[in-house]
Amino acid sequence: MRETELVEKIRRLAGRPPLVRGIGDDCAILRPRANEDLVFTSDFALEGRHFTLKTHSSGDIGHLALARSLSDIAAMGAEPVFCLVSLAMPPNFLVHRFFKALLALAGKYKLTLAGGDLARFDKVLVDVICCGRLPRGKAMLRSAARIGDRIYVTGKLGKPAHRPKPRIAAGLTLRRLGVKAAMDLSDGLSLDLARFCRESKVGAELSSIPIARGASLDEALDRGEDYELLFTAPPKLKIPPSLASDIGVITRSRKICLDGRPLSPKGFDHFA
Amino acid sequence: MRETELVEKIRRLAGRPPLVRGIGDDCAILRPRANEDLVFTSDFALEGRHFTLKTHSSGDIGHLALARSLSDIAAMGAEPVFCLVSLAMPPNFLVHRFFKALLALAGKYKLTLAGGDLARFDKVLVDVICCGRLPRGKAMLRSAARIGDRIYVTGKLGKPAHRPKPRIAAGLTLRRLGVKAAMDLSDGLSLDLARFCRESKVGAELSSIPIARGASLDEALDRGEDYELLFTAPPKLKIPPSLASDIGVITRSRKICLDGRPLSPKGFDHFA
Repeated sequence: MRETELVEKIRRLAGRPPLVRGIGDDCAILRPRANEDLVFTSDFALEGRHFTLKTHSSGDIGHLALARSLSDIAAMGAEPVFCLVSLAMPPNFLVHRFFKALLALAGKYKLTLAGGDLARFDKVLVDVICCGRLPRGKAMLRSAARIGDRIYVTGKLGKPAHRPKPRIAAGLTLRRLGVKAAMDLSDGLSLDLARFCRESKVGAELSSIPIARGASLDEALDRGEDYELLFTAPPKLKIPPSLASDIGVITRSRKICLDGRPLSPKGFDHFA
Repeated sequence: MRETELVEKIRRLAGRPPLVRGIGDDCAILRPRANEDLVFTSDFALEGRHFTLKTHSSGDIGHLALARSLSDIAAMGAEPVFCLVSLAMPPNFLVHRFFKALLALAGKYKLTLAGGDLARFDKVLVDVICCGRLPRGKAMLRSAARIGDRIYVTGKLGKPAHRPKPRIAAGLTLRRLGVKAAMDLSDGLSLDLARFCRESKVGAELSSIPIARGASLDEALDRGEDYELLFTAPPKLKIPPSLASDIGVITRSRKICLDGRPLSPKGFDHFA
């Protein structure tokens, strides 16, 4: 198949976008609405780093690659708008199944595939860029945790799903409830919480961790790939227990402790 | 170096962005202005496909990766706003020089590095996402060529520059002159013109091609990597010869001819 035909095939799969212009030009065109902020993220999914062809089908890869980016959109409290997908792959890769699974996930959030890039390579490489929208000034930030805030996580940690569900709905709910500080958990609670606290210039005292059935405490703290949301809220803001678990409190001391003992960040560092 | 330190280093290099929020959160945040459209593109630069470590230094790769994306922004007639850079590389890759060269090019267009992704890999993989802005409804499109339009290209073709200069200034000038139809030449005039004509549902009759010194006509037609702009304009719109060369006319017949003979698209197809 030539590139032109492949682009045509993907364009037909993607359907008609709500953008001014999607696949088929040098750029996708977005007409912003009044009083909105736009958020952007890009995330790699690389063969041998984030998945292998033994453990993941073409469809699994398409789902995972988009879910990773959507998780960042969820963490800001934004509504997904469009994605660009850059895909490099060997000739035997099932491109059609990759895009079918990616578009199935995109469809759940009314997210449009607006463009991207295609190339031949001896391994499967994906970079997904997502754009989300939210009311002006309302994005949840890593830097907005305040001393005395309670700390929460959605879901249970330590047991990655094969096809993770990005927490878009939870992110929107939290933002509407008035939550100001959040991030997504992709590299493990211990490492991600350290990043969160550094951006907010605070510390944390953890008391209880929601551990997934079959996972250990260490896995819940350090394994990563949870794609749950970590967030804080002042005690007066009531967070429904069905939405998230209270795991501790933000402290003035710049340390992170679990049950009074220092917790060192051991999650997945891409360069360690 | 751990990922956190590397991100800090890049954040310091990138300086303070004009965005609401740049590097350091889950997403970059952009506050759109009134009455503007935003354009988006993503482009791979992959070791062994678009460059080799024998022919390109880390700095060359940083420049090339951004230039490829900026060329698409130029083709829309947009002003660059920000980029996201996803970079995977082996431990010995000179990340600092890569970002220095990328940011030197970005600085020429007041483009902000707003985020991206980093990963370890055994080859150097780059995906650069660029966002540009322009007045609402004014983007130059591949689909806007009309029968009778003259066809133009900027610069001379067939001899790729080691560090290509994206035609941002030319793109802005053309859009302000009232040009409606443009694309960038990355895969060779013969192939890119075929794509352009297909999107506009027209044909083309070429009469003269501006060939770079030392290049052959075949190289000018098929070699690719020119990063010049291809555009059309009605005859009444005067295009200064210093800006671009008149190479032919848009025709009703869906064929592309050079001096009366059919021209087959032989440029760089990523899947041929």
